[in-house]
Amino acid sequence: MANILRNKRFENDVSNLTLDFVESISFDKRLAGYDISGSLAHVTMLSKCKIIPKNDADKIIKGLKEIGLEIAEGKFRFKTELEDIHFNIESRLKEKIGSVAGKLHTARSRNDQVALDLRLFLREEVKLQIVQIKKMQHILLNIAEKNIDLIMPGYTHLQHAQPVSLAHHFLAYYFMFQRDKERLTETLTRINVMPLGSAALAGTAFPIDRNYTAKLLNFPKIAENSMDAVSDRDFAVEYLFDASLIIMHLSRLSEELILWSSQEFSFIEINDEFTTGSSIMPQKKNPDICELVRGKTGRVYGNLISMLTIMKSLPMTYNRDLQEDKEAVFDSVDTLEKCLEIYIAMLPKIKFNEKNMAQSAALGFLEATEIADYLVREGMPFRDAHSITGKIVRYCLKNNIRFLDLDIGTFRSFSDLFRDDIYEHVTLTQSVDSKKSFGGTSFKNIKETIRKEKGRL
Amino acid sequence: MANILRNKRFENDVSNLTLDFVESISFDKRLAGYDISGSLAHVTMLSKCKIIPKNDADKIIKGLKEIGLEIAEGKFRFKTELEDIHFNIESRLKEKIGSVAGKLHTARSRNDQVALDLRLFLREEVKLQIVQIKKMQHILLNIAEKNIDLIMPGYTHLQHAQPVSLAHHFLAYYFMFQRDKERLTETLTRINVMPLGSAALAGTAFPIDRNYTAKLLNFPKIAENSMDAVSDRDFAVEYLFDASLIIMHLSRLSEELILWSSQEFSFIEINDEFTTGSSIMPQKKNPDICELVRGKTGRVYGNLISMLTIMKSLPMTYNRDLQEDKEAVFDSVDTLEKCLEIYIAMLPKIKFNEKNMAQSAALGFLEATEIADYLVREGMPFRDAHSITGKIVRYCLKNNIRFLDLDIGTFRSFSDLFRDDIYEHVTLTQSVDSKKSFGGTSFKNIKETIRKEKGRL
Amino acid sequence: MANILRNKRFENDVSNLTLDFVESISFDKRLAGYDISGSLAHVTMLSKCKIIPKNDADKIIKGLKEIGLEIAEGKFRFKTELEDIHFNIESRLKEKIGSVAGKLHTARSRNDQVALDLRLFLREEVKLQIVQIKKMQHILLNIAEKNIDLIMPGYTHLQHAQPVSLAHHFLAYYFMFQRDKERLTETLTRINVMPLGSAALAGTAFPIDRNYTAKLLNFPKIAENSMDAVSDRDFAVEYLFDASLIIMHLSRLSEELILWSSQEFSFIEINDEFTTGSSIMPQKKNPDICELVRGKTGRVYGNLISMLTIMKSLPMTYNRDLQEDKEAVFDSVDTLEKCLEIYIAMLPKIKFNEKNMAQSAALGFLEATEIADYLVREGMPFRDAHSITGKIVRYCLKNNIRFLDLDIGTFRSFSDLFRDDIYEHVTLTQSVDSKKSFGGTSFKNIKETIRKEKGRL
Amino acid sequence: MANILRNKRFENDVSNLTLDFVESISFDKRLAGYDISGSLAHVTMLSKCKIIPKNDADKIIKGLKEIGLEIAEGKFRFKTELEDIHFNIESRLKEKIGSVAGKLHTARSRNDQVALDLRLFLREEVKLQIVQIKKMQHILLNIAEKNIDLIMPGYTHLQHAQPVSLAHHFLAYYFMFQRDKERLTETLTRINVMPLGSAALAGTAFPIDRNYTAKLLNFPKIAENSMDAVSDRDFAVEYLFDASLIIMHLSRLSEELILWSSQEFSFIEINDEFTTGSSIMPQKKNPDICELVRGKTGRVYGNLISMLTIMKSLPMTYNRDLQEDKEAVFDSVDTLEKCLEIYIAMLPKIKFNEKNMAQSAALGFLEATEIADYLVREGMPFRDAHSITGKIVRYCLKNNIRFLDLDIGTFRSFSDLFRDDIYEHVTLTQSVDSKKSFGGTSFKNIKETIRKEKGRL
Repeated sequence: MANILRNKRFENDVSNLTLDFVESISFDKRLAGYDISGSLAHVTMLSKCKIIPKNDADKIIKGLKEIGLEIAEGKFRFKTELEDIHFNIESRLKEKIGSVAGKLHTARSRNDQVALDLRLFLREEVKLQIVQIKKMQHILLNIAEKNIDLIMPGYTHLQHAQPVSLAHHFLAYYFMFQRDKERLTETLTRINVMPLGSAALAGTAFPIDRNYTAKLLNFPKIAENSMDAVSDRDFAVEYLFDASLIIMHLSRLSEELILWSSQEFSFIEINDEFTTGSSIMPQKKNPDICELVRGKTGRVYGNLISMLTIMKSLPMTYNRDLQEDKEAVFDSVDTLEKCLEIYIAMLPKIKFNEKNMAQSAALGFLEATEIADYLVREGMPFRDAHSITGKIVRYCLKNNIRFLDLDIGTFRSFSDLFRDDIYEHVTLTQSVDSKKSFGGTSFKNIKETIRKEKGRL
Repeated sequence: MANILRNKRFENDVSNLTLDFVESISFDKRLAGYDISGSLAHVTMLSKCKIIPKNDADKIIKGLKEIGLEIAEGKFRFKTELEDIHFNIESRLKEKIGSVAGKLHTARSRNDQVALDLRLFLREEVKLQIVQIKKMQHILLNIAEKNIDLIMPGYTHLQHAQPVSLAHHFLAYYFMFQRDKERLTETLTRINVMPLGSAALAGTAFPIDRNYTAKLLNFPKIAENSMDAVSDRDFAVEYLFDASLIIMHLSRLSEELILWSSQEFSFIEINDEFTTGSSIMPQKKNPDICELVRGKTGRVYGNLISMLTIMKSLPMTYNRDLQEDKEAVFDSVDTLEKCLEIYIAMLPKIKFNEKNMAQSAALGFLEATEIADYLVREGMPFRDAHSITGKIVRYCLKNNIRFLDLDIGTFRSFSDLFRDDIYEHVTLTQSVDSKKSFGGTSFKNIKETIRKEKGRL
Repeated sequence: MANILRNKRFENDVSNLTLDFVESISFDKRLAGYDISGSLAHVTMLSKCKIIPKNDADKIIKGLKEIGLEIAEGKFRFKTELEDIHFNIESRLKEKIGSVAGKLHTARSRNDQVALDLRLFLREEVKLQIVQIKKMQHILLNIAEKNIDLIMPGYTHLQHAQPVSLAHHFLAYYFMFQRDKERLTETLTRINVMPLGSAALAGTAFPIDRNYTAKLLNFPKIAENSMDAVSDRDFAVEYLFDASLIIMHLSRLSEELILWSSQEFSFIEINDEFTTGSSIMPQKKNPDICELVRGKTGRVYGNLISMLTIMKSLPMTYNRDLQEDKEAVFDSVDTLEKCLEIYIAMLPKIKFNEKNMAQSAALGFLEATEIADYLVREGMPFRDAHSITGKIVRYCLKNNIRFLDLDIGTFRSFSDLFRDDIYEHVTLTQSVDSKKSFGGTSFKNIKETIRKEKGRL
Repeated sequence: MANILRNKRFENDVSNLTLDFVESISFDKRLAGYDISGSLAHVTMLSKCKIIPKNDADKIIKGLKEIGLEIAEGKFRFKTELEDIHFNIESRLKEKIGSVAGKLHTARSRNDQVALDLRLFLREEVKLQIVQIKKMQHILLNIAEKNIDLIMPGYTHLQHAQPVSLAHHFLAYYFMFQRDKERLTETLTRINVMPLGSAALAGTAFPIDRNYTAKLLNFPKIAENSMDAVSDRDFAVEYLFDASLIIMHLSRLSEELILWSSQEFSFIEINDEFTTGSSIMPQKKNPDICELVRGKTGRVYGNLISMLTIMKSLPMTYNRDLQEDKEAVFDSVDTLEKCLEIYIAMLPKIKFNEKNMAQSAALGFLEATEIADYLVREGMPFRDAHSITGKIVRYCLKNNIRFLDLDIGTFRSFSDLFRDDIYEHVTLTQSVDSKKSFGGTSFKNIKETIRKEKGRL
């Protein structure tokens, strides 16, 4: 990693232009806390291994802790001319304790230091987002629990297909987030690997104890190859991908909430707290949050592509291109956190217009499958049953009536397999409740799923 | 999922234009084997659950097996007008066994059927790619084992930084592929979930036994929500991402092999089998395979973006957009398989020009860190040691000499901490071997890593 | 560009694995016609410049023309072992006319040859797509012309905002495609540049006449730097971007047609010719084509990213990575052509449900802006007028009435600026027709736009 | 566009969470100057058209100008609770001049206002970047002019292919930037279209004069459809694409400069001003700027994908998703500007190591093409000449000699077409200078190109 505080080899001064171009302190100051934690662990290990005297280590530790406090209290002055967070802190340390500060960087390079900081940061953020996703799942389970009996049209191709319970619909999202949580958890094991001790790229000749540092920093695993360790950003790309899938799921939910908020659907009302009006059309109540979340899918995908592009065909080992990793990661972390936070607040307050959903479900011959299934149960091959049902639908459309309006004679004119009990099968409630196959929308299934998942969470 | 073999509801014929636009048989015929396996399991379950008579089931099973044979022998005629693989097979079944064929589709929809086929396909392919990656890792271990003593310059910023063992360099790639294998293995658990039984979107009223079907098809897990099951393509996007990271790693390796093949580096010679010449410049020997692999990174990234774009803001449940999943998945699967295959063949035959690597490592004052570390061990703070070493480098550059050419007096003119043993530290071999920290490039470390990883594979 | 038919320098045979990996004939055979055209022009120039004897040139020309015929008639046997289209044709030429065939490649390299072929291909395809877009625009103008009086809700945030003419809505798309046409036309000027004569990378010592070849091939411009010419694929990336914007526009239109086809909107009916049904739900009529076009946005975006990734940090000049350009370009060309073709067929047959649109427009207090504007015209600052209108809407919502139901006294209780003529302003027709600002939805504006644009097309 | 300052329709207060989520002032404050310019033009037009009294207009104009000054002087307090730049300014205006401020928003919506601001911003930035690119081209011409005689290896596949002039190499980049300039110029015509007057989406009933406003704001063209105008971001995506190609070109140049800075190439030395050292390896001199520019390709590509994703399948007209356009545009604008700026400063100070380039060019039988061409000129078909040259190269490799070392007898043992003048053709200078075809690397060509392009710039 580059060092703007260059040694005496350079004849010319670095220009301000260069300084402004290469500095990262404007964004990596966010890592300050992690940088200090890492340094504290490093110096404690150096002392324990007798690489530096305990006396010096104590001075460094005291200095670092004071600096940590200065930063926490907003008193620290970050300087662009000191380029990055590592030098800002080290330089302040020197001001405080003199040249002994220079011993902190023994057996360390900025290459392994910055990899450490980013891993510490992401470890904490990913843990937070796992918690957020659990909250999201809780809310989805609660919505489901309250709306088991609420029947709505189930869609394929955005066409009415079969009636489903609103609970079933929201449980679908529950399971999407379940996968997201799994992925984040797995990514966490690859984030949670300590690079420190890899030094510039080759390891170090000092008799360091990486296991001890790892223990201090709570890392279950240590990077096994120093060259890989300083040039690896797979864990960051992987997080950016996990984030992309999460916001993709949120974009799907957002799209539905936007549709359902339209005058044509009128399935839901989003609480005023979470909508905005129009500067020229006073009657408007816009689902801005859903739109913004949907729009933010763009930036999260963009960050993924950004990082994949950076890594493409990058030779070993550390290259300055890698400095570009941080802003992409920060942006996706922040975006996702905010999107989850506001959904967690907004979702529980959504009002479902049960009546409109039911009215809508009454359109579109949603019980057609029941008729076909009825015939199949009577022994007719599915394809024939399907064909006859199609004829019945056509008849109803032409006469502008519904299945329930057909008398039994008419039913039997299509197939004499129909008997009086056909009327029991062509109601929405019966249609929903009949889907008793595991994973299906029957009320019993839904209740069982909610019960089980509440236990699991 | 749409059905071009539409029932009687439609007054007009579907136009050929539409048929050509919506057909998928031109690419999904590749799923034929999986479609038949899925149908065999489904019908066996239908019969076991007495949803269709055993007699009918036996006819269907016999017919499907015959069709499987026809396809395997290249005798099956795929028809565009039958739109997709599912209808092509069902239609042939009807030709063979008559209208009883129509019973196969009982309690099933193309929505869960196509999800099943894609999962069966990916399950097999991912398992294959895990095997390929293991082979790749074996080769990397072998290369490492044969080249422990081969010293080359270690790079940061494509500048000589510190000498490393070639083995250490290749082990870095070994660990990248280790992570790739982990990711694929985890993705496999999310691929390996059976959607069948979700029917169109809501589940089915037939008393099916999904666990039995899952057992027949060797699925450890069943999709828990029918709406999610028919609209979920997360597993496919996730594979496309895993593939992106794998080819990103290959692109990094390719870039290095291309650099090393250049006249300026001349570190390696790729076997003639794997290079091509030029139509106008007869002396050329081009690393085409490495270039093509590097270039193919584009299509694998592109497929990922393609699928992420498709899924963005797609409402529930099945939408025809999802038909676009297959070609992206097929293309990344094939690309990756071919790239891994040719690398597995090419890598073991690469000849390393030990002499050139060593000569190159002799440039660039690669042992500078040793000098700085020497001073640190003598008690000087790292930053001061670093500064003094810079002065020595500047002196050497000005006088066009190497560290070993400095007499002890000159060394001591920079710092009187230098003693005669300094000369032991400024050789390449000593520099490499001194990096004994865990994960560092010392010969002992490398040997130990190779031993351990050979056991692990 | 690499040559698999390598000369005698190579000791080993190229392996089949390599051949399969590097071959491009499986896809670049599509360029056969352009390759022959390019060769015909090249050899004609060589003869004219006396670089090869006229006699030899005539033989080559005759041979090439015969090969062209063989290909056109499907009699040509493409061979993988001959790697690419260029060698397949040259090899066949040799079979036909003997070693004089070898003179064709004088002063040429596959590097400039393949760049030429791709440019010739794209030139023709882009011209075709410009024609398709014009057809699309014609159809949009026709739809607009037939539906000037059809009033529908205009949406912002998918909420009813202000009433607009359906014509105005479709004209918005007309202008999007206008920009697409402009971009394609501009891209065409950058495609339409002849690279031939750049040879491998440095130009040639033969006294060729590039202007003459350009004239024969109808190129207005010649590449000015040979190194740029053989490594430049900007024109291809640029086309892939143009295609991305076009399909983005189509995805927006598709999304609207899908929404409008839903039972909840019921604004349109897509002709049966262009929809499909369901295998399990016989009543379904799915807007599959719109969904597929929306889904195909993914692959077109993906191809763009693919090519951008390929080009990233590629050093000079030709690198084999560039072989990956063709499939991305072919796929976007074909996808776009098919999408435009089917929309051109489908759009004119869409039936608009005027009644449903009008009913929908009657919801949502779409005339609110008129009330605010009324007050402004009476001298009230816009923000105050806006605030008062908000109060009126709230009053109407609470009492479940519409603006027209308010008596004048009630109006005046909100502001005494209201007079009897307020009722003239709160009708949908008046609201639409009042927007007479240039570009607004007034009927007169629309008519004028249609007239003008019909002339322009 | 949403309005957080909602009217009285809303019963509940907007939560702070929502405010933080939807606010844009934290980034769109950058548009302040353009927002004021747009408002000044708008109010001037309103007054001219007698839509508001001249007296009121004067007050508004005076107020706006004062606010402009406050912002310029850093005295303006931007408030998050006022959500965006438009409301921040309008609210301050009200503080200054009272409720007459509310008249400013007559016949305008934030939907057309924000589109205007972004267009004004991009118009200025694109003009600036065109100027920067011209500067870049000047520098490339200067480098070329100074290095016409400097011969270096020309590469294909990163292998030595044919010798070229360094000038020729840099002129290749000149022509890439020429295309970039063309594209920016064309994009500018599509940016330079005034949306104002489209109001919320349908136009306005006020008798505005859009041509007058356009004249005041220096727009040559007015948006022709109000619905398109408020939802169109094509111009922004197009800029993001142009930026992607520009940085792609910079990434290619960067890659080469990084390669050339390596110890193995040693073709160039980047001035100390623009390089950095290492914190642990004092001898390092890293091409950080080139690496960072190469890395920044990721974010510029990412921004393009971000915006394409946002626009995918977005229905008419304004949707809040569009708020996400600004940060992507700002980031690419800033990134590109900085990258160009630093290259403009860095490039002229690069020192070319003529000796190393020449030595390198002497490797690799770069004159092989000359031998093949020699035989062709003597009447041999190119393919045969190519084959014989291959044999000569093999002979030289085996005997470890160069072409010039072969005696004439040996030459003639391969073909009796060789005569004494063959030695004139196998020198690097002669090889370079022989490429006299238009666009080739001959010295005369290069001089002529530099002369012509200097005139053109």
